[in-house]
Amino acid sequence: MSPHLSILFVTLAFSLHCVIISASDPDPVQDFCIPNPRYGSVRIAHLAILPCKNSSEATVNDFVFSGMQSAGNFSDTGLAAIPVNPTIFPGINTLGMSFIRADLKVGGINPPHFHPRATEISYVVRGSVYSGFVDSGNRVFARTIEEGEVMVFPRGLVHFQMNVGDKPATIFGSFNSQNPGSQKIPAAIFGSGINEELLEKTFGLSPKQIGRMRRKFDPRV
Amino acid sequence: MSPHLSILFVTLAFSLHCVIISASDPDPVQDFCIPNPRYGSVRIAHLAILPCKNSSEATVNDFVFSGMQSAGNFSDTGLAAIPVNPTIFPGINTLGMSFIRADLKVGGINPPHFHPRATEISYVVRGSVYSGFVDSGNRVFARTIEEGEVMVFPRGLVHFQMNVGDKPATIFGSFNSQNPGSQKIPAAIFGSGINEELLEKTFGLSPKQIGRMRRKFDPRV
Amino acid sequence: MSPHLSILFVTLAFSLHCVIISASDPDPVQDFCIPNPRYGSVRIAHLAILPCKNSSEATVNDFVFSGMQSAGNFSDTGLAAIPVNPTIFPGINTLGMSFIRADLKVGGINPPHFHPRATEISYVVRGSVYSGFVDSGNRVFARTIEEGEVMVFPRGLVHFQMNVGDKPATIFGSFNSQNPGSQKIPAAIFGSGINEELLEKTFGLSPKQIGRMRRKFDPRV
Amino acid sequence: MSPHLSILFVTLAFSLHCVIISASDPDPVQDFCIPNPRYGSVRIAHLAILPCKNSSEATVNDFVFSGMQSAGNFSDTGLAAIPVNPTIFPGINTLGMSFIRADLKVGGINPPHFHPRATEISYVVRGSVYSGFVDSGNRVFARTIEEGEVMVFPRGLVHFQMNVGDKPATIFGSFNSQNPGSQKIPAAIFGSGINEELLEKTFGLSPKQIGRMRRKFDPRV
Amino acid sequence: MSPHLSILFVTLAFSLHCVIISASDPDPVQDFCIPNPRYGSVRIAHLAILPCKNSSEATVNDFVFSGMQSAGNFSDTGLAAIPVNPTIFPGINTLGMSFIRADLKVGGINPPHFHPRATEISYVVRGSVYSGFVDSGNRVFARTIEEGEVMVFPRGLVHFQMNVGDKPATIFGSFNSQNPGSQKIPAAIFGSGINEELLEKTFGLSPKQIGRMRRKFDPRV
Amino acid sequence: MSPHLSILFVTLAFSLHCVIISASDPDPVQDFCIPNPRYGSVRIAHLAILPCKNSSEATVNDFVFSGMQSAGNFSDTGLAAIPVNPTIFPGINTLGMSFIRADLKVGGINPPHFHPRATEISYVVRGSVYSGFVDSGNRVFARTIEEGEVMVFPRGLVHFQMNVGDKPATIFGSFNSQNPGSQKIPAAIFGSGINEELLEKTFGLSPKQIGRMRRKFDPRV
Repeated sequence: MSPHLSILFVTLAFSLHCVIISASDPDPVQDFCIPNPRYGSVRIAHLAILPCKNSSEATVNDFVFSGMQSAGNFSDTGLAAIPVNPTIFPGINTLGMSFIRADLKVGGINPPHFHPRATEISYVVRGSVYSGFVDSGNRVFARTIEEGEVMVFPRGLVHFQMNVGDKPATIFGSFNSQNPGSQKIPAAIFGSGINEELLEKTFGLSPKQIGRMRRKFDPRV
Repeated sequence: MSPHLSILFVTLAFSLHCVIISASDPDPVQDFCIPNPRYGSVRIAHLAILPCKNSSEATVNDFVFSGMQSAGNFSDTGLAAIPVNPTIFPGINTLGMSFIRADLKVGGINPPHFHPRATEISYVVRGSVYSGFVDSGNRVFARTIEEGEVMVFPRGLVHFQMNVGDKPATIFGSFNSQNPGSQKIPAAIFGSGINEELLEKTFGLSPKQIGRMRRKFDPRV
Repeated sequence: MSPHLSILFVTLAFSLHCVIISASDPDPVQDFCIPNPRYGSVRIAHLAILPCKNSSEATVNDFVFSGMQSAGNFSDTGLAAIPVNPTIFPGINTLGMSFIRADLKVGGINPPHFHPRATEISYVVRGSVYSGFVDSGNRVFARTIEEGEVMVFPRGLVHFQMNVGDKPATIFGSFNSQNPGSQKIPAAIFGSGINEELLEKTFGLSPKQIGRMRRKFDPRV
Repeated sequence: MSPHLSILFVTLAFSLHCVIISASDPDPVQDFCIPNPRYGSVRIAHLAILPCKNSSEATVNDFVFSGMQSAGNFSDTGLAAIPVNPTIFPGINTLGMSFIRADLKVGGINPPHFHPRATEISYVVRGSVYSGFVDSGNRVFARTIEEGEVMVFPRGLVHFQMNVGDKPATIFGSFNSQNPGSQKIPAAIFGSGINEELLEKTFGLSPKQIGRMRRKFDPRV
Repeated sequence: MSPHLSILFVTLAFSLHCVIISASDPDPVQDFCIPNPRYGSVRIAHLAILPCKNSSEATVNDFVFSGMQSAGNFSDTGLAAIPVNPTIFPGINTLGMSFIRADLKVGGINPPHFHPRATEISYVVRGSVYSGFVDSGNRVFARTIEEGEVMVFPRGLVHFQMNVGDKPATIFGSFNSQNPGSQKIPAAIFGSGINEELLEKTFGLSPKQIGRMRRKFDPRV
Repeated sequence: MSPHLSILFVTLAFSLHCVIISASDPDPVQDFCIPNPRYGSVRIAHLAILPCKNSSEATVNDFVFSGMQSAGNFSDTGLAAIPVNPTIFPGINTLGMSFIRADLKVGGINPPHFHPRATEISYVVRGSVYSGFVDSGNRVFARTIEEGEVMVFPRGLVHFQMNVGDKPATIFGSFNSQNPGSQKIPAAIFGSGINEELLEKTFGLSPKQIGRMRRKFDPRV
């Protein structure tokens, strides 16, 4: 890599640092900031960050996202999710919001997870979706939601969905952060490599049972 | 419990509500705060606010909104808007988001307006919608958006929509504020009672022309 | 309108004003606000909130907390936690911080949990504590921390602790929210009443296995 | 341009991105940050941003602005505005405020406009100024303000001024954002290139009338 | 006092609590909130807070402050300050700003002080004012500022002013908080009752010297 | 210095600018951001800032601080302070908190000072410490705090400590900002070079007395 490039990388790497503080919440100090693709496609950690385009080079297409007119690829739980944040829709950068299209096969589930940095507005475009969340007093709020209905998942609380209808379901979710984050419970607990003794004591499971869970959720086991 | 004491409790319960709060951006300090309908339907200014429900009385229905499964009433510009904020969906209170369903007749418009307190994510559920916004350098970013596409309107910038397809259009918009506010340009400028000499000088129009605009947009004239 | 109702209206009208408000992080607009105990001990939901003391009635004792000089009561996982927020230390109200004393018996654990609204600084006062967290890419960061060492748990990420030394351990944790919240994974997932079919699909467990977990963590089963 | 310089530009362009999040509101994490003029005068989009001066090189002159002791250049509506933000007063960078000197000829106007990112405190240094704003319910609040009086324009609401005295007027305005932004209604609506059919439907004007407005406000027509 | 009134007071006292967190920074969720004087003039602690006026009862006069067209009363250091916050200008409530008029006699001083919650923009309306602040590395930035010049004092840093001209000086200061707070160094250190041994060790002064200072600045001695 | 390096410095210097906005309060938009030591140890102004490590290179040791297991070096007032911010504990970068270990010899003092950007939670690990703060009404709140007790110092208010026990004292303080800042009163007032006439008028001291104070606190005199 040439020294100039490496310096460019320093700059861009730093942008990640800067953007960290961007967040959904603080007020922007200009109209918008579209990352500048001229400097190549630099993917860093969770986010591809690029220097701002000069605003005179922005076009309307920078502010339109067309990549979710059809469903994404389905996981083995029957979920196809297309999360849209500045990595794939640069024009949303610094504007404090992001969104997602989620499709569920009949019987498919979106396993329990939470978004540490955002509330979610979940709008059922089509289908019947059992949807719910758990509050911090361990009480569940869940029921089936039909087409045209909206459910809200408060920030940082565990929530989940299951297609209980007899046709595919489509959900449009929006978030009040440009990068809400997502921590999926099964993988975070059993797939991350937490000390097994601690997991045994936590769930009252045997070493063998914990081992079975780890084999299911930890890609390294 | 004496009536006075119960009122005290209202006050204090409310304090919980207050502290929780936030506007769109600041972090809430508890999971959620559903206004308590027990105290009647009190509409104040722009917003109906009620003391918090005890969280043990909350049910899943508090977090689901079912009032926009069909279009609202159409205005004379061919727009039917159902804005959803804590006034009609109390469960969203303090969670930093709100949303809207907008339907446009063929040729209908959503006139230029802006939301002082939120970015808007505009998802076209069905139809073809010419959509755009103006940046603070007076440059327009506009084009037609099709079903399944999303456009973002940065906070505080004038934007507008027109159904340019040959069938009705439906839009689901979401905001990163529980009360984004809306200032519609024609009514704010010509329908609010601003000094006419100032308006004449602003637009280079004659008193007669300004008078015609005022009659069109000012309900009091 | 009765006088009581009119007072209710005052309260509610005020709520409008309050909604402007914020949370733990925004800047306070005065030096401090100690809730006024004169109005009785009102416990609401998660937090007891009282009207402000007149600042001239505040004393130094309002700003000192003396209730954690010794350990609290131990749970069956060997953890004794004394979380200190405005409910038990009113003087900290509105100041954007709270704290906790946690003691662990030899072999005791603090099960995986997360705080939706705060980063935690965890200072080991005495003992050897295996401590860690999981990032949103499901990677664990964990090791044993000794007396005088500090570990930081980033906001909203699952973390856990286990006393791996041969004597009791004491931890002083502090948070950048006056009410960080806490969602304990075992109870939130298995003790809250989430639909069992969804849990079976999530973890790949049989109905019998899920039933066993529910009996362990759901106080209602 | 040399490759080094272009890399410098990348860095600085990025700064624009970073500063976006600076905004008026978040707390700074150091005393101040004066952009470093050593790296040349780089103007980007709306804002010239430079790397920080080492704080030991800062002098008192960095914190004093002397460029508005007399009026600026008058526009054809009789307004001379000197907006002061980090572009021309670098020392104010990151401090969450900016300000403006506005002079109005006799009969001169400051046309309806709004600042998406700040409240404005408007202090009449000399003269008699008809001043007002429109709330989001389309109600105008306006009257004449005399020397030594102050009017406040809430964030994001359309406001305007006209010198109704018989001598020149001078106004000192201050903002709670380092870059409040400004969207001037006539130019944003008629001078930006919004679809003419949409404008006709919005204002009930004929194509000819809209054309006349566009010729007046759109520099490209 | 009647029970109803006392409940009203609870409400209002609580408002103080609410407003505390409002601060200058969070986004408001409505256009404005003018406290409602109908409920009497309630002064609490540092701030008089009242329930919101119904916005339809607001008038333009609520947004204009006319009480500082002439100088206030002079202290013995030759300073006359009129700080304007929601207590005396209710219309500014929740808008995130406040302001001050300060007049200095020839040779008069505004002693070293700081505002914990705001940056200050200091505009010299007339006169010659030696002005400065100290950064957290104990370096002073000070010089004389003339009519029409502006100096900025970063948030939380000690600053001071002295009229070094040969005629009275007038300053208009504005702040990015509705209640910036003010801690005056001489009174805070020597007039508050801090343990004298600690003060002797701090300044290297004798008990007699500290006693002299206390008699000068502590109204109780 | 090579041109490449100087460009690197531009980038990093700029990072300082960016970090300014990080602050304690805004939400981060990713899990964490550890500065990348690969790019050398660059110290700028108050803070050493480096580009982010790729998160896959982070290890648990990045989140553990081990440098305060014993006391630091004592000043001549008997205070040994180890302030821990991102400069010496990079893993805490962007997480909105920092902390300090302070040790006091018998009779040692921590002179009056304030932190412009944070509330402080002060936990006495061992010893007896007279602790207090002054509110903005010049009222002191102070008393002796024993081992295991906690005192809170509200943001921006002058506070101080003195070891009044008969053995050394250790304090663990935590802050809700990654860089709370610190302005020490004696040095800020008498050691910074403020105009002597202004100081004489402020404290009612003679030129000779002020000169003595300056010689004591100003390292340049």
